[in-house]
Amino acid sequence: MSDCLFCKIIAGQIPAHKVYENDSVLAFLDIGPVSTGHTLVVPKQHAENLAAGSVEDACALMTAIHDLAPKITKAVGGSGYNLGMNHGEVAGQDVLHTHLHIMPRKDGEPRNFVKQPVSQEELSKVAEMIRLAI
Amino acid sequence: MSDCLFCKIIAGQIPAHKVYENDSVLAFLDIGPVSTGHTLVVPKQHAENLAAGSVEDACALMTAIHDLAPKITKAVGGSGYNLGMNHGEVAGQDVLHTHLHIMPRKDGEPRNFVKQPVSQEELSKVAEMIRLAI
Repeated sequence: MSDCLFCKIIAGQIPAHKVYENDSVLAFLDIGPVSTGHTLVVPKQHAENLAAGSVEDACALMTAIHDLAPKITKAVGGSGYNLGMNHGEVAGQDVLHTHLHIMPRKDGEPRNFVKQPVSQEELSKVAEMIRLAI
Repeated sequence: MSDCLFCKIIAGQIPAHKVYENDSVLAFLDIGPVSTGHTLVVPKQHAENLAAGSVEDACALMTAIHDLAPKITKAVGGSGYNLGMNHGEVAGQDVLHTHLHIMPRKDGEPRNFVKQPVSQEELSKVAEMIRLAI
């Protein structure tokens, strides 16, 4: 969709800290991370949310998560991770294009969902670290 | 696994408020719901977490979610939902058998992750309402 932020990132019209891509999905860092390595994975085919998209895209998304989540977590020194999807404004969905959050967690750090301030330089470093580990 | 709570529920050895079942997955109400209709969907094949299980089981889980989440949300009068998975103790995983949380959200209710006290009778009513809608 022409006015969709994530479609523009997928099309390369808006920059993002990309960490992985295949025919079906794109993964890039959240610019308001709740933890180091907080990554969004999105189907390339636009749909407002999971149920509005195809079952095939849902499976492709989960197949990517199955592979990526442990690798991203290990890359940033985490020992576990939360996965999350928000559907609808009432659930906190901020961009109306299906996206799944991978939020690595480290021992001793609070497990919250508060966005942390982070510089573009820091995001670049984290993205490079993750790309090398995938 | 013989000492796994969710395997015992799948095997029918421990009661649960089941709402859906197919060859690959079972869905039942969380006994400590953060919202009305809070449902757990689990692969029948035991694995400690998503990545420890097969890609096929991950896809089967997401295929079920794609279908169930909107129906469950509608059944309880929600207008959106959060999906969540916790991997590892550091991420809050309390049962070491892959499970995905469907948490319906209603307009005007707080979007928190605090377990609400609820009676077995109330859970039975909610489960019946959901089964009729699926």
